[in-house]
Formats: sequence, structure tokens, C-alpha cells
Amino acid sequence: MNSENFTLSEKIVSASYVRQGCQARRSHEQLIRLLLEQGKCPEEGWSESTVELFLNELAVMDSNNFLSNCGVGEREGRVASSLVARRHYRLIHGIGRSGDIAAVQPKAAGSSLLNKLTNSVVLDIIKLTGVRSAASCFVVPMATGMSLTLCFLTLRHRRPKARYIIWPRIDQKSCFKAMITAGFEPVVVENVLEGDELRTDLEAVERKIEELGAENVLCVHSTTSCFAPRVPDRLEELATICAKHSIPHIVNNAYGVQSSKCMHLIQQGARVGRIDAFVQSLDKNFMVPVGGAIIAGFDEAFIQEISRMYPGRASASPSLDVLITLLTLGARGYKKLVSERKEMYLLLAQELKSLASAHGERLLHTPHNPISLAMSLDGLQAEDDKAVTQLGSMLFTRQVSGARVIPLGKEQVVSGHTFRGFMSHSETYPCPYLNAASAVGITREDVTLCIKRLDKCLKTLKKELNAAKSSSAVPPPSQEDTTPRETNATQD
Amino acid sequence: MNSENFTLSEKIVSASYVRQGCQARRSHEQLIRLLLEQGKCPEEGWSESTVELFLNELAVMDSNNFLSNCGVGEREGRVASSLVARRHYRLIHGIGRSGDIAAVQPKAAGSSLLNKLTNSVVLDIIKLTGVRSAASCFVVPMATGMSLTLCFLTLRHRRPKARYIIWPRIDQKSCFKAMITAGFEPVVVENVLEGDELRTDLEAVERKIEELGAENVLCVHSTTSCFAPRVPDRLEELATICAKHSIPHIVNNAYGVQSSKCMHLIQQGARVGRIDAFVQSLDKNFMVPVGGAIIAGFDEAFIQEISRMYPGRASASPSLDVLITLLTLGARGYKKLVSERKEMYLLLAQELKSLASAHGERLLHTPHNPISLAMSLDGLQAEDDKAVTQLGSMLFTRQVSGARVIPLGKEQVVSGHTFRGFMSHSETYPCPYLNAASAVGITREDVTLCIKRLDKCLKTLKKELNAAKSSSAVPPPSQEDTTPRETNATQD
Amino acid sequence: MNSENFTLSEKIVSASYVRQGCQARRSHEQLIRLLLEQGKCPEEGWSESTVELFLNELAVMDSNNFLSNCGVGEREGRVASSLVARRHYRLIHGIGRSGDIAAVQPKAAGSSLLNKLTNSVVLDIIKLTGVRSAASCFVVPMATGMSLTLCFLTLRHRRPKARYIIWPRIDQKSCFKAMITAGFEPVVVENVLEGDELRTDLEAVERKIEELGAENVLCVHSTTSCFAPRVPDRLEELATICAKHSIPHIVNNAYGVQSSKCMHLIQQGARVGRIDAFVQSLDKNFMVPVGGAIIAGFDEAFIQEISRMYPGRASASPSLDVLITLLTLGARGYKKLVSERKEMYLLLAQELKSLASAHGERLLHTPHNPISLAMSLDGLQAEDDKAVTQLGSMLFTRQVSGARVIPLGKEQVVSGHTFRGFMSHSETYPCPYLNAASAVGITREDVTLCIKRLDKCLKTLKKELNAAKSSSAVPPPSQEDTTPRETNATQD
Amino acid sequence: MNSENFTLSEKIVSASYVRQGCQARRSHEQLIRLLLEQGKCPEEGWSESTVELFLNELAVMDSNNFLSNCGVGEREGRVASSLVARRHYRLIHGIGRSGDIAAVQPKAAGSSLLNKLTNSVVLDIIKLTGVRSAASCFVVPMATGMSLTLCFLTLRHRRPKARYIIWPRIDQKSCFKAMITAGFEPVVVENVLEGDELRTDLEAVERKIEELGAENVLCVHSTTSCFAPRVPDRLEELATICAKHSIPHIVNNAYGVQSSKCMHLIQQGARVGRIDAFVQSLDKNFMVPVGGAIIAGFDEAFIQEISRMYPGRASASPSLDVLITLLTLGARGYKKLVSERKEMYLLLAQELKSLASAHGERLLHTPHNPISLAMSLDGLQAEDDKAVTQLGSMLFTRQVSGARVIPLGKEQVVSGHTFRGFMSHSETYPCPYLNAASAVGITREDVTLCIKRLDKCLKTLKKELNAAKSSSAVPPPSQEDTTPRETNATQD
Repeated sequence: MNSENFTLSEKIVSASYVRQGCQARRSHEQLIRLLLEQGKCPEEGWSESTVELFLNELAVMDSNNFLSNCGVGEREGRVASSLVARRHYRLIHGIGRSGDIAAVQPKAAGSSLLNKLTNSVVLDIIKLTGVRSAASCFVVPMATGMSLTLCFLTLRHRRPKARYIIWPRIDQKSCFKAMITAGFEPVVVENVLEGDELRTDLEAVERKIEELGAENVLCVHSTTSCFAPRVPDRLEELATICAKHSIPHIVNNAYGVQSSKCMHLIQQGARVGRIDAFVQSLDKNFMVPVGGAIIAGFDEAFIQEISRMYPGRASASPSLDVLITLLTLGARGYKKLVSERKEMYLLLAQELKSLASAHGERLLHTPHNPISLAMSLDGLQAEDDKAVTQLGSMLFTRQVSGARVIPLGKEQVVSGHTFRGFMSHSETYPCPYLNAASAVGITREDVTLCIKRLDKCLKTLKKELNAAKSSSAVPPPSQEDTTPRETNATQD
Repeated sequence: MNSENFTLSEKIVSASYVRQGCQARRSHEQLIRLLLEQGKCPEEGWSESTVELFLNELAVMDSNNFLSNCGVGEREGRVASSLVARRHYRLIHGIGRSGDIAAVQPKAAGSSLLNKLTNSVVLDIIKLTGVRSAASCFVVPMATGMSLTLCFLTLRHRRPKARYIIWPRIDQKSCFKAMITAGFEPVVVENVLEGDELRTDLEAVERKIEELGAENVLCVHSTTSCFAPRVPDRLEELATICAKHSIPHIVNNAYGVQSSKCMHLIQQGARVGRIDAFVQSLDKNFMVPVGGAIIAGFDEAFIQEISRMYPGRASASPSLDVLITLLTLGARGYKKLVSERKEMYLLLAQELKSLASAHGERLLHTPHNPISLAMSLDGLQAEDDKAVTQLGSMLFTRQVSGARVIPLGKEQVVSGHTFRGFMSHSETYPCPYLNAASAVGITREDVTLCIKRLDKCLKTLKKELNAAKSSSAVPPPSQEDTTPRETNATQD
Repeated sequence: MNSENFTLSEKIVSASYVRQGCQARRSHEQLIRLLLEQGKCPEEGWSESTVELFLNELAVMDSNNFLSNCGVGEREGRVASSLVARRHYRLIHGIGRSGDIAAVQPKAAGSSLLNKLTNSVVLDIIKLTGVRSAASCFVVPMATGMSLTLCFLTLRHRRPKARYIIWPRIDQKSCFKAMITAGFEPVVVENVLEGDELRTDLEAVERKIEELGAENVLCVHSTTSCFAPRVPDRLEELATICAKHSIPHIVNNAYGVQSSKCMHLIQQGARVGRIDAFVQSLDKNFMVPVGGAIIAGFDEAFIQEISRMYPGRASASPSLDVLITLLTLGARGYKKLVSERKEMYLLLAQELKSLASAHGERLLHTPHNPISLAMSLDGLQAEDDKAVTQLGSMLFTRQVSGARVIPLGKEQVVSGHTFRGFMSHSETYPCPYLNAASAVGITREDVTLCIKRLDKCLKTLKKELNAAKSSSAVPPPSQEDTTPRETNATQD
Repeated sequence: MNSENFTLSEKIVSASYVRQGCQARRSHEQLIRLLLEQGKCPEEGWSESTVELFLNELAVMDSNNFLSNCGVGEREGRVASSLVARRHYRLIHGIGRSGDIAAVQPKAAGSSLLNKLTNSVVLDIIKLTGVRSAASCFVVPMATGMSLTLCFLTLRHRRPKARYIIWPRIDQKSCFKAMITAGFEPVVVENVLEGDELRTDLEAVERKIEELGAENVLCVHSTTSCFAPRVPDRLEELATICAKHSIPHIVNNAYGVQSSKCMHLIQQGARVGRIDAFVQSLDKNFMVPVGGAIIAGFDEAFIQEISRMYPGRASASPSLDVLITLLTLGARGYKKLVSERKEMYLLLAQELKSLASAHGERLLHTPHNPISLAMSLDGLQAEDDKAVTQLGSMLFTRQVSGARVIPLGKEQVVSGHTFRGFMSHSETYPCPYLNAASAVGITREDVTLCIKRLDKCLKTLKKELNAAKSSSAVPPPSQEDTTPRETNATQD
């Protein structure tokens, strides 16, 4: 309420009480002022009532909520269902304009503010979590993969001759398809095995560049967050190579914001060499629904160039989700989540290690991967070829989600390219294994339940295998455990 | 509740009352059954309580809502903010898988159902509104422009040599940029003036094909819904040309679902010639928030090919919005909206005609455009060069949204291409004009208010101009009316 | 947002767009200003966004939402469940203080405003609907019956000797119990039959007063809205009698606000005689959930005396519901509902009349009852004693709610008092009948469906009866129709 | 969804995923089954999604949500505003029938279940928190005070001759007014001072009974939870006296459920003597909005008699709130809240003690009061007469809510009765003091902030007083601290 309305209220209820209410309102407005002024994630999270007050304020600034608007355009922000209007806080106009997804809309000052502030708050978090020299970013309502595609399409205009993208192998479909969809030919560089870890083959990358000719290479497309035993790419060295050959460098940082290690790699890469853009998922890093990504970089002009490539307005829904989430958590809340994740990573590692050794297996030694862990399944494989896959089904049925089993020697064709040893990031990884990850939001209960159920599954499975052996027949897997063979969650 | 719980309830309150409650529940379930069985938009709209019951049912099927789930993956559908969880009805996993935006997710049976049903219900509506032989469609959480880009990128894999897209000119940035972003060279075909209408120059199209060589043409990119005095492209003839030359044909049907004429054009085009895909906006046709589109076509395999091009999972938000909306409206409700729109079009035309003649202008004769109308502004232009632009500002300030003024002779460079007479779809349209459209959801009050304010603005403006003339000076426009020169809403 | 925040916003998005947003906000605030200034129901209903904006503004004024409040009292408005907080718009402190339900709370300026404004808006509606000289009223979160009890308890302090309440009979439990609960002895005055109507026996009332002595009579307790063939009491005459004998007069106007006739009776009664308070239900008149009432009167001091009798704070929930509803409807919307109700009354009367004559029955002639109608069931009764009751069960099963069947000769003891002919408001009404009412919110579909189903039930029933007769046996009622014998909804 | 719909879903998305979704649904239903079967508060709290699923299930059982209902009654559960419908989960019919607030409604099986289950769950909590032999209870949507009134009104029918209620003094208006409103004469028994504590004067009680004659005494009305230095009444002894004289005994247990001590007193009282009913506030014990109470007792018949005294249906809103809250918290959650409260009580006592001694005051020794504490303000009073009151205003202005200051010698007339030393529960308490309480939901931050601000206020005040003294003038209190003299929150 404005001051006039407060004055009127004083006549209805006691002036001193109203004055206190008015003062209370100011404390909410003060928080909003700080946000508008600094464009940063507030240190302390806002209460839900401040958040909703703010969103309501934004909504009344959009023309579809003007009390005396009349609309004779083809897009007026009309909403047929009140359920729909309500769930979007009556912010209907989306973000951006036909020319630029980051542009301001004349019809929608509130939605435009939402868009600008979200990008600004998200940039603040990216800096806080480690990429201190990031210069610009924007939220785009597309998957990480499609966002990578948009980066590649933008680069095409800068490098019209280039046809290849150099890509240290990571077995995840959408980042591979991102290159295919953009119309480029991925040049897959196999990883090298160092101990248990699969790491970037830097020499092979450089060899490929020379072989193809730098001018024919659109960019190097590297990856941070990934499933163990693959580890984040050697970003510093790759960035240096890119700088040396004047080749753009796009980093797939899918769920890396939650890991200071991944963020540090990007910061360092940009410092010593060249990183043009890095792309991260909203849902995986910020605990929001699937469907958004952040495209960030160190050169504001290039990031703007990408944002201008998106033809048309876009959904504000992912921006709204991440803004609500970050305002509610505050910087402190987000940092707390990130540090709890790290703690749970250590717990998960320790618990998996004990479990592994109890079952004659071992936790693979992958110190460079800060999120994902892998436990060998050699023994299981030795017993029966299909036992590894069956373990996956059993875990799915028992509501252990996200645990992936990786059998040996799977071959798969993705968009015309044949991957041998698919899912293991390597043509010939030495052993089958099981993955488990400590991602943001994981709880102690997730870890202990997972370990308990995994333990039980392994015991049941071995008993069945032994029973089958003694009856010299293949064990007929219990009905419920057979169906969904590919429990294996895939990224993005 | 299941039957066991109903039986228990009978012990607490009277059995006959519970039995009636149980029967009432069945009538909701019966509606859901019909939807699951037929995959069609229900004839009668559902009550909000049925809609929410259904969404809650879907949500409990997703793993993030399993009561005893434990998650050790990198994407577990966790949500940090309860505001966010609630506004998505706890459907967090989005739609699709990394390989295919239409694919089913193991972790999210409910979201997968949502996705499949939405596509199915939307296809039903597309058939009902006129494209009876449509074979397949899917909702994609991207703007119409970006969705067109996805179509072009898909075609690239079928026609690797092709570099050009033939495009009958329509002055709207995002469909033009859709081609640029996809990496193709738009070949702009100027329209021909027939009476007041700007129509497709079929001969020029055919000439261009021959000139460039059919194999070098990725596709013809035509348009239905557009601002008068441009009218929908001659789809039948274009489709025939495409068939003849074996060139794909993509139709931008942005807000054409609401018009039986546009839908009929597509149906006819596909019958007599070739249309590969047609793309329409969700928000403009279904009164939902900005950010989604429908890609539809007549060959299921090709539409699937497009859906497999989207790398990664995607936001379910636009699908959710359109599903809620269509279930709430029912087929009958949607058809009613469409017929009311048509009625308002006639009213708007009539009112504009009267107004125009009162001000010495005329309603341009554009019978082929079923949505948008244009009124000449010759007189205004004659008075003062800037008067046309000023009228736009005045309307904006008076909360008339969507009314665009088109001055003569504007030149604009978009992505390197220079458009003369920009916004008028023609290098030399004979007169400046004002656009108004009757889009779905428009009310009688929108029309009357718009006419009233427009009348007032014209009068005020003329008075000012006269006053200025008599004082032999350019009129200093009143402060408030100067600022936003480009009221002109642009499509998408 | 305050002006400082708007200024900051102008730096982020275009100043002219923000300025328009700011102006749009003012138009919401202008509506709130009018409400605060005049305390009247707005003529035009508010949009949901204005309503929610206003409620949010109220909530931030309550201490439980102060950002830096610390609470060390025993009642701090803390809420354990966010579902609960949200559904009350975070208005937690209820209304009133221990001393007075209409008092202002120091801790809750917002809730206090809500309370004051609700009472003020409701008073405005009471005046608009016909009781133009009403001086004061307040919403109390109790049923009509309990609210009547509160009135009687207040009167006890004025008339400590009085033990009797004179009450023209109406067969509805809660208004009878209201007197019992308050500790008084109801003196039941039987109605007189005039044509088909049951009307107040004025002579008997006066006789009773003389018999008992005016000083021993707490008050006369009369009724407006009731089931036909009873009609509203003769308020003018009763009020005159009360004035003459200096006896207070409390009117049970349960669902009479929706009827101009009932309201007119009260207005007239107060004009020519004495009415101390009249009580009406919130849910039945304003389409809100059950649980609130309005106590109104013509002497502000007496109404305040009642409000001071409620010991303790009270739920704000009914006040919130009715405020939201009236702001959303506006005076115009409420008047429209009321006039539609009247129209449906005429339709229902006409349809029932046709139906009755088709079945050899008749619509009872009760022109003084503006809401409820009755159709004789003589023929049914003649066929079989239990047929009337069975009709009630059949209607219940077929989801015709609110239609009551009244068999002859039912006797019931309520709180020690024996009512012969219970439910018919008379010891010996001439015929059994069925009631149907046209209450606010009724739709044409309600009427037509009810008539259709009633017709079908009557036909089925007669067929069964005939079949039974020809087989000279009592018809075994079909299983489903036997259970809930007392479909008969009772008031309040 | 029922099994048929699950089967249909299997055709749309993979059968194994649907099967898992179906199984997940069963786990929600299993929780609901336990609730229906046992009628107890679940040990572990439910997720919000289970709660909402359950409420939706209840709502579809009410006739206002039947898809093919037609209504011709005067109360059909219609709702004009969708905001209102939504916030009540479409449960519109309230609770009870005209005859009995605990009765089942034919039109509303869902609301009836809600009512029965709430009462059952609440009874479970009352037993768990200490009154193990409680036999029955019901939630009533009225303040504690009005609920006490209802108890007294019920007793009137059992003891028609009785005119007096014996009431050990507690200075809180609504429980006093509860007796006045019911039409009885409160016989105030002054407390005795034992150390710092004010305790029940048992001899005076017995004396009064003999003086008035047991048959003229309606009941003894005692109190548990109260502000220090008053402590809970000696319930065991009072109950014994009541049993001996066959006098009913009603206990005001306003916020005592949160204290095992208060609950233990009731349990013991009932064991050794007579307690007919005990009444507690919903909001103060269960962190829900103001407006409901629980009437409980040891004799089911008597409690039912009370519930039958409420004339009319009642608001379901308080029942809904407490049910949502208890299902969400679970028994474990509630017990945790209660034990945290106890912990904070100890912290608050310790902090107040330190603070008091730092300012030359002392924490009054009131070990029998488990919730409220008092700190003397002798020094302040000595400085200046008005300083104590001013401290109250200062705390209010600084958003310390709930801290009450009690000056000496205040006299107040409540409903005709003069209380000397009002607010201090005694005509002559030795010193002025400040109250602070540790009530359920209090946080560590509440305590530390309160202590900090109180410390600051005391320092400021003393400085001002000294300054004033040295300038030999009364200190002009700073403007902002003068206004609301009666910060003193009062109970209920």
C-alpha cells in the first residue's frame, strides 16, 4: 500500500499499529531495493512472503494485468485457465523479444525485470561458486544439450568454413547430439586410462587439430562434471591449446556449479587459455524442475551474440523457478547446500568403500571426480554375464534411483556414430561397475538407504546365482526384477 | 482412495454416504479413463477439481514423489523451494530423454504420461480445427522461431548440400532469424500487391528455385497468419511447386490454429502438394504463457525425426499449461473461443471501417486475412511526418496494446539483410497504416475500448497538428507521449 | 514497490515501460484507497490479482510476518505448516481481542483492518439488499444458531428475570436449540393455515405475552427465510407487538439476504416497530463455506454489546472468505446473483407446477415464500405409506441434493420438546409434500436436471407400486434406494 | 487412479514404469489406510503431497464436488470465488449438523470424515502429551473462552438451580467473560503468595462452596497455563474437593497441551478427583491460526452432550488446519516441538536471570510455572512511576512481541467486576515485573533477540531517566515510544 492508503488505514485501526505495519512493509521493500540496486543474490534468503510480494509486484507491471488495458494484438498475454495464470504468478509474457532473448519487452516491464534480475543473480552465484571472472550469462529455457547447440550455431557465423568439433569422449547422448543437431561432425577423442581414471588425451586432441586444420575446427567441446571413472577434462591444458590455435572452446559444465573443483577448472582455464562459453543445467545445479540452462562466458559481447541467436520470445518458467529458489535460499543457503553435498560425497565414498570390500569388490580410485563414484562389479560379472544388468533392474525396483550399472562391452550407435564400450567412456574399460553420485540436495538418508538396499541386492543376487549354479541352471530372475533393463539414468 | 480405504471410511461415517462419495470419485476417474483410452480432448471441459486430481495422480507416479525413494544420481528431481514444487504440481522431471524429447522416462512415469497425452490432445485439436489429416505432432518448450530452426536443422541431415531457404517476405524478425540461426541463407521473395493485399509471388518463387537449383534449396518456408495487408501465403500453389521440385515445405502457422481459414489452407496444401511440417505457437493459439510451440506434420516418421533432434530433456511447463487449458476448456470450449474470435473480427472490422471513414481514412480491403486488419493513415502522414509514429506512442500510453502503426519507408538491417519498407512486408507499400487484430480471447470490451481510445487519439493529434500549423511550428508532443517510439509489437 | 524501487527498476529496464507499470500499480492502489476511504463494497468486482495484492499487503502488517520480530508471548501467530500459512494468506492472528470480537489487535494491524473492513462491506451489502436503515453489524465465525444464542445471552444481562422466548414454530433444529443452549424456555406458537400457507398466529403471540407477563419474556424470536408452505413471519406486526410490550425482538434471517422480500420485511419491521437484531448465515447468502454468520441491527450500541459478549479472539476465516467474495463480485455482481436467483425461482415454480399436474399433484400456493416451493405428494401417499420416504432416498441416490420430502405425521422430540408433524411446521398439515428451493447460485441446469430426475423417480416409483399391487405384495425397494432415509436437508 | 486407468496408462508409457508409479501410489494409500484404521496421529509426518492427495480425496466425496449433482436446497456448498474454494480444498460444507457439531452430514461424506478423523487424531495427541485417560474430545471453531461458555451452558441443564462459578483468580479477560456470557456469577478466589508464586487458595475455595451451598455452584473453573508469577492451579486438590462436594470441574487448559506438567496435572486431577472437561486453544498449542479450541474430557457422554449443545453447522477451517498440521508433523514432530520448547524455556530462564542480575533485578522464582517467566522491575519503578509502562512501549516499537510489563496497582473493571492490581493476578503483588514465555515454536533466535533488545531498552531507559533527573525534569519520552501503552498482550 502506498502512504495515502496507510494514512487512511490509521483512521480504521490504531495509528500506532498501522505505523508499525507500514514500517514492516518497508523492511520487505528494503530487501527488494538491495536486489534492484546490486543485482546480486541476497546473502540471507528471503521469506516466502517477501518472494511472493515481489512477484506480485512484478506481475502488476505487465500489461496483461493492467486494469484498463485493451488488447488488439495477436499476443496479449491472455490466459484461459486460472490454474495456469496462478501458477505463473500471472507473469505471462515470457522473456525476450523476437530479436533477442535478453531484450526488454514494452508490454511487460515486470517480466523484463524478472529476466534481467535472474540473469544477474545467477551470474553472481557463478562468481561466488568459483568462476570469479565470469563476465556475463543468461538463462535459457532449453536443455543443456540444446543450449550447447545454440552456442555451436552462433560460432558457425564466426567460422563459416569449420565443420568439425573436437570432443573428448563422454558417453552421454545429449551433448553428442548437440553437435549433430547443429550440423557438425564430432571428432571423438578417446580418453586415456590413468590408474582407474579416464582422462583427457591432450596429445590426441592436438594431433587432431593439426590433422584437420585449425580453421576447419569449429571448437573444442570439453566436459567437467561426468560419471566416474571418467573425470573432468584437463581444462587448463585444453584452454591453452585452444588459445594457441585460435580455436573456440565451449565447456559442458552440466552439473558442475555445485562443485568448487569444476568451477575452479573453468576459472583457471579462462585465466591461462581460452574458454568462450560454458553451459550448465539449471535443474541439476539449483534443484529446480528440468528444462533450463545457463550460458555463461568471459566476453560479454560473445554471450550477447548467443542470446541474439535465439529467434523469438521464450518461456520465463525456468527463470522464475531459479529466481524464486535463489532468493529463498540466499547465497548462504546455496553455499550450505553445496558444502553439505561435499560432506555427503565423503560419506558416500566411505560407505561404498566398506560395502565394496565386504563384497570382494573395490571403490575405484577416482580422486579427480568430485561428484560421481564407481564401485567395481568384477565378482558379479564373473558369476554370470547378465548379473550386472540384473543388479540394475533390482535397484530400480527397490526405488534406488540414479544408481547406474555399467556392464562391459556394450556397443551402441548414436546418430550414426558407433560407440564401443558405451556408457563407460572408453572402448575397453577394465571392469564393469556401478555408479553413485553425491549431487546437490542429497541427504544422509539417501546415502544410508542406498547402501543398505545395494547390500541387500548384492546378497540376494549372489544367493540366487549360487542356487542356480548348484542346480546347474541359469537362475530365473524373479519376475519383478526383469523388466526395465536400462535403469541407467543418463545425463540431461 | 482405493476400495479398502473406502470400506474403512464406512465404519467412520455412514456407509451410504461413503458409497455415494465413492461413486462420485468414479465419475472423475471415468473422465480420466476416457482421456487415457482415446487420447482426445474431452468434448466437455473438466472441472478444476478433476484437473487437479489428475495432475496429483500423475505426480505420485514420478520417482521424486516416491515415499521411500533414495536417490544417488545427478538428477533426482529434488526441489529446494516448496513454492516451485507446488507451482509445478510436483512434476519435476520435465519431458523426454537425452535421445528424444518425446521419449518416456524411467524415473517419471507421470511426467511421461503428461507428455504423451498432451501431444495426443493437441493433435486432436489440430484435427478438429481443420487439419484433419495431420498425422503427428509434439509440443516443444521453445518459441515458434526456435522450433522452425529445429525443423531446418533436421532437414539439413536429409539435404546436406542445400544452403538456401526460399521465403516469401513477412516482416517479423524471429521467423527470419530462425533461418539465420540454423545456418542457412534466406532467399527473400517480395510479395505482389493485389488490390490492397500483399500476396505470394508464385512466379518469383518458382524462378528462384530454378535459378538456385532445387537440390540447393533446403525448403520453402511459408507463412499463414500475418499482419494485414499481407495475407496468408498461397499454400496450395506453394505446396504444389514444392511437390513438383521435391523440395521440403515448412509452414509458419504462428497463430493460425485459431483461424479455420489458416488451418484449411494447410489441409489443402498437404492434400494437393507437399507440406513437411507446420509450426504454431502455444501462447498465441491457446491462451497460455509464452514459450511453447507445436511442431506438426503429415508424416509421423519425419515429425519423430525432428523430436529426436532436440538434444536433452526439456521443460514440461508449456505442456502442462496447454494440457490444463484444453482439459478445462474441452473441445467445445475451445471451439467456442474460436467462434467468438471470428465474431469479434467482424465487429472490429466494422468499427474500424466507421472510424476510418469518420477520419477521412479507410479500412484496407484485405479479405484473405482472417485475423488482422489495417486502416490507412494517409491523412495523418500528410499532416506531419512524425504524426504516425506519435500515434503509436499515444496508444501505448493509453494502454491500447497490440495496435501497431506502420510508417512508410522505414529501413532496417536484420542479421545482415536490409529490409526496405520494414514492417510493411513490402519495399513500397502505398500508404502508412495501423494494424489491429482479433485474436483468440479478445472481448467485445477490447474492441470498443480500442476504437474509443483510437478515436480520441486521432482527434487530439489532429488538434495538436492544427495548433502547431497555425503557430507555424512543429508541435511539441506532450511529454508522456514521446518515449516508446516502437510500440509496434512484433510477432513471437 | 515504492517509488525508490521503481526508480531503480528504470535503470534495469526502459524507464517508459517501468513508468507504465508504476501507473498500473496505482490503479490497483486506487481501488484499495476507495475501499479504505468509503468502507463500501466496490461497485465493480476486483480482479483476483487486486484481491491477492491487497491480502498480501494486509499480511505484511501483522507481526507474525515482520522480518525482524522476536516473540516471547504465548500466542505469536507461528504456523507449523506452510500449507496452512498459505491458505490463510499468512493472516494468522484471527479477529478481535479477549474483550471484544470487533476490537483492534496491537499485534495484527492487517488482520484488524480485515475485520473492520469486512464488517463495513457486509453492512453495505445489507443496506443495498434492502435493510437500508441497518446501523451496525459484525461477522462472527459461528453458525446462525450459535449466533442467535449469543444474542439471547446478551439480552439476559438486560432482562435478568426473563425466562421465556416466544417463537412462532419453524421446524428446524438449530434455531430451536439456540434458545435451549442459551438456557431459555422456548414458547412454541403454532402457525395458522391460510390457504396452503402456514403463517404467524399473531393473536396467539400476543396472548402468550399477556399470559407469561412481558417482563418474563426475553424476546420474540421470529423467522424470515423458511421452507414452504411455511412463509416468513409477519414481521411488521410482530415488531409492533414487541414495541408495544417493550419486548426485544430477534429475527432469524438465515438465508434471507438473498431475497429482497425478506430484507424488506426486516426494514419495515424496524420502521414501524421493534427489531433488536437480525442474524443471517454467511454461507447461505454469500456462497462461502459453512461457518459464519452476520449479526446486524439498528442500534449500534446493542450490536456492540453483543460483540463484546464473545469471550476471546475468533477465527478470521469466515471474514476472509466473505471479504474475498464480495470484493471479487462487487456490488453489481452480488445484485446480479440475487436477480438470477429470483429468475430461477420463477422457472422452478413453473416447472414444478407442470410436473405436479402431470403427476396428478399440485404446486402448493405459497406466494409469500420467495425462496422455497412445495409440491403435494398426496397421490404417492395414497398408494403406499412409505412411498414418500422412498422418493427422498431415490432423489438422494440420484444426486438431487436439497430436495426434501415431508411425510405426514412424523413426531420428534428435540431437546425435550415434542413436535408433532415434525418438519412440516404444523401439527396437522393437510398433505405430504416435497420441497425445492431456489437459492443464490442456483443455475438453470440445476432446475432442469432436478425436474428431469424427479419426473423419472416419480414414474419409476409408481411403476414399482403398481407392480407390487398387482402382485399383491409390498414392493421390495431396490437395494440402492433404501439407505439414507433422511435425505431431508435441514437448515443450518 | 484406479487399476483400470493404470492398465490403460501401461499402453501409453512403459508398463514397468507405470507399475512402479502404481506401487508408489499404494504407499500413499497405505498411510491413509493406517489413519482410517487407527484414527491416530501418524508417528512420522506425511509429506505435503500425501496430505494434499488425501484432502483432494475427501473433497471429491462431498456433494458440492459431484460432477452430476443438481442442487435445489438452501445450502448447496456453492462457492462464488475460486480463491475461496481453493483455499478450503473445496471442502465447503463445514462440520456437524444442526443437531450436533460432531454429527455426520449426508451431503458431505468427505467433510464428515475430516471432522471425525480430526477429533480422533487430536484425542491421540492429548493422550500422548499426558492425559492418558482422556476418553473423548472434539474440535470446535470457537475461541477457548467461548468454548468454556459452551461447557457452562451445558452444565446449566444438569444443574438448573446453580448460579455461581468458583474461579481462582487469573487476570485474563476472556476466561472471566466466559462465565459472564454464560449468565453466571463468577466467585473470584484470590490467590495466595508462596515465595514469589501465586497459588490456589484451596481453603478459600472450600469455604466458598460451603458458604454458597454446593447445589448453587455450577462448577469450579480452574486454570493450568498462565502468566508467572501465577502458577497452574492445584488441580489434584481442587478435583478432590469437587468430587467430595459433587461439583463439576471445568479446567481452562488454554496453552497447556504443550507442557507435560500441565497435562500431568489434568491426568492426576482426573485420577484422584473430578474433572468434567478441559478446554484448550488450537492456535496456542498447535501453531495454527487463531479460532479453534478442543473440548475434552473423561466421560464420553458428557463431552457428547456439550457437542450437541452447539446449535448448527460449524466452520471446518480450524479442524482442517489442525489436521493438516498434525499429519505433516506426525507424533514425532509434535513431540520434538514440545521438547524444543522446554529446552528454550530453560535457555530463556537462564538468560533472563543473567540479564536481571546485570540490571539489579531478579528472575522471580516460579518453578511451578512451566511456560511463563517473570523478571522484577523494582529498580525501574523506583526511578519513575511511568518507566515500567514506557518499557512496554519501547519493546513493542522494537518488535519484541509478547513481552508484557506489569506495573503495580492498576485497577480495572471487567463486566462489572473490579479487579485491583489487574494483570498481576493479585490485589497486592510485591513488585512490578516483565513477563516472557517460551511457547511452542519459539526459536533460539527469538530468545537471544529478545534478551538483546530488552537489555538495550533497559539501558536506554535508565540513561534517559538519569538525564531527566539531572535536568530535574520528567524525561520527555522519545515520540516513537509513547503511543501504544498497552503492549501487554492478553491471552486468547
